[in-house]
Amino acid sequence: MKFCSALLTIFSVCVVADAFVPRSRPALMRGGGLSPFMSATAEEKDTKDEKSDGKKAGKDAPPTHLGWNTHNPVSEAPSSLVREMDGGPDGNYPMRSKFEKMCRDAQIAITKAIEEIDGEGQFKEDCWTRENGGGGISRVLAGGKVFEKAGVNLSVVYGSMPPEALQAATERGVDRAKGMAPGERVPFFACGLSSVMHPKNPFCPTMHFNYRYFETDGGVWWFGGGTDITPCYINEKDMKHFHGTYKEICDKHDPKYHEEFKAWADRYFVIQHRNETRGFGGIFFDDQNDREPDTIFEFSKECLNNVINAYGPIIEEHKDDEYTQKQKEWQLMRRGRYVEFNLVYDRGTVFGLKTGGRIESILMSLPETARWEYNAVPEPGTPEADFLDACTFPRTWV
Amino acid sequence: MKFCSALLTIFSVCVVADAFVPRSRPALMRGGGLSPFMSATAEEKDTKDEKSDGKKAGKDAPPTHLGWNTHNPVSEAPSSLVREMDGGPDGNYPMRSKFEKMCRDAQIAITKAIEEIDGEGQFKEDCWTRENGGGGISRVLAGGKVFEKAGVNLSVVYGSMPPEALQAATERGVDRAKGMAPGERVPFFACGLSSVMHPKNPFCPTMHFNYRYFETDGGVWWFGGGTDITPCYINEKDMKHFHGTYKEICDKHDPKYHEEFKAWADRYFVIQHRNETRGFGGIFFDDQNDREPDTIFEFSKECLNNVINAYGPIIEEHKDDEYTQKQKEWQLMRRGRYVEFNLVYDRGTVFGLKTGGRIESILMSLPETARWEYNAVPEPGTPEADFLDACTFPRTWV
Repeated sequence: MKFCSALLTIFSVCVVADAFVPRSRPALMRGGGLSPFMSATAEEKDTKDEKSDGKKAGKDAPPTHLGWNTHNPVSEAPSSLVREMDGGPDGNYPMRSKFEKMCRDAQIAITKAIEEIDGEGQFKEDCWTRENGGGGISRVLAGGKVFEKAGVNLSVVYGSMPPEALQAATERGVDRAKGMAPGERVPFFACGLSSVMHPKNPFCPTMHFNYRYFETDGGVWWFGGGTDITPCYINEKDMKHFHGTYKEICDKHDPKYHEEFKAWADRYFVIQHRNETRGFGGIFFDDQNDREPDTIFEFSKECLNNVINAYGPIIEEHKDDEYTQKQKEWQLMRRGRYVEFNLVYDRGTVFGLKTGGRIESILMSLPETARWEYNAVPEPGTPEADFLDACTFPRTWV
Repeated sequence: MKFCSALLTIFSVCVVADAFVPRSRPALMRGGGLSPFMSATAEEKDTKDEKSDGKKAGKDAPPTHLGWNTHNPVSEAPSSLVREMDGGPDGNYPMRSKFEKMCRDAQIAITKAIEEIDGEGQFKEDCWTRENGGGGISRVLAGGKVFEKAGVNLSVVYGSMPPEALQAATERGVDRAKGMAPGERVPFFACGLSSVMHPKNPFCPTMHFNYRYFETDGGVWWFGGGTDITPCYINEKDMKHFHGTYKEICDKHDPKYHEEFKAWADRYFVIQHRNETRGFGGIFFDDQNDREPDTIFEFSKECLNNVINAYGPIIEEHKDDEYTQKQKEWQLMRRGRYVEFNLVYDRGTVFGLKTGGRIESILMSLPETARWEYNAVPEPGTPEADFLDACTFPRTWV
């Protein structure tokens, strides 16, 4: 309970840090980008008048840079980090607390399951609050028997999106500035649960997930999220299980979801300078507000609550696999790639680093060790070369 | 001779990738930013008319993104990578070849000296050319006795700066678009030598240097460069020697240089999200065109030719120092910081990654291994804590 933690990676995977990402690859553009991004309950007037009038950010709205010293460690998190009496768009009122509760329950369940799989490692919890509301709970396990490093972080944020970031969002066809006066920063609420798990064994994949809910003071709301897997060797059976678990969930909610969200993950998790994916994807979605909030909430909840079902059996299966020093070095080089993706492209990470988030929580996602060898290209025909091929041409696993 | 190499880190430390760097910290602004950035030989007319007329980029001018497949490996570099009959601003004609020759001579001398210090490791040379002119020579030593990884890379580039990057340059008070029509991309020539050396022993600092010369088709030219040092423990005597060597050189050329260029390095090599410097700096300069080209050339040459004098004795002194596993881990965590700086802030690296440079050459600068521990804060009173203090409040070593 010694440390405090923020988690800014939930910020706007795809919102704000877009400003730092080159335009050449429309990584987060969905199909036609034409789904109804408007709040279902927003008045039509807002759409027409958004350029000529709109709300101004309140005088007490948070700054766009949160600052170094806004994280106050607390020994125990309050029962809710959502401000009392927090409103929200009409008909959407209780979603802030409801989403937070879902995240907190999942954080407890997932960390318990991971401790059981590990058998030795224990999560250490750090809580923090912030003056203008919100805060977070970080749980990090380091140096376990099975896991080198695993973190599950809850974050509740009252922030402001800077106007220059919103311009980038608008280019993507998502008007997150809607309802606000032009050039105005957009105060927002965000809540999310985010996680990265790096096992020791090279045959145990790294796993990442992030489920989040946003509301702006302009009356726009949306859900985002995803779970993805980063092995360093191909195992078809594991991939069938992982992707199959999420396909089944997606199919229950919308027959188009899996194809769309699998492709979105394949587009998002790309190390562009190497022209290869970080791993083997999973599902990824953002800007979801095209149906009732409760409907999307239920989908997010089912995705989140199945993280362990999708990932756990793979770790149980391979945690004691034998491996060579060469295979361990290959894993460490793939972890170097993980670092490259997270520091150069991951919008949540880049945004968090540049807006004063709590560094140790944001960079919890980095592996304990990573390796870079000059010009290390696997010999053709090896499992490593096959793996790279699957990173260059994403495969369909189910 | 199997591989080909580009080195884009010479690109515009401080030119182009500015677009990716937040504005909050004017890292590269010199004193008042008011030195005469104009070419000494440019006509006054250009200044007045630059918004209303100006040159258009030629139809054969290179694209702003160089592409994945423009690096052609060659078994031996031609005697010059500068195009034959290459012109340049009036009175500055032979500088392209002259600067290239200086770099090539220094590359040979420095790699020879490093091999002698190492005693076992050998540099491997990779050469490449590019269709529209230019190319490079990479020399990389991996797995030596003293050096884990050391690279010295020559690069000659015919490229184009994108208009959005130039806007950022203009904000900094440097009009690199001068002489070109508004909104036009700016074709340029650049030549430079760049290096990073990562020794194995935690008491042997990492060293980086980069000396470069730029010319635009609009008739603007400038020199940039610097040498800086990144230890992971404080050794006053070593720092006095390193900084003293460069102070002496600076003082010979301009009594104001050392103070200015030392401060510039302290501002540039900052890991902003951690509010700490990468290491202990050295000298850093850019946009130098306030005196005769030959005068600045002589200064650059003396800086470059003294890299080994400044660095070599420190390695000789400490290469066999005894160290503990804990000290090695601390070194690896500082290497994690090196990775964070290079991937998030270093303008040359970020620009290279995002414009299609040769990845293996750009990322040669990363250490072989790096480490991230969650919330690892040194105990007060330890050498590690003292080191961090010097990264937070840059010291004067001479």
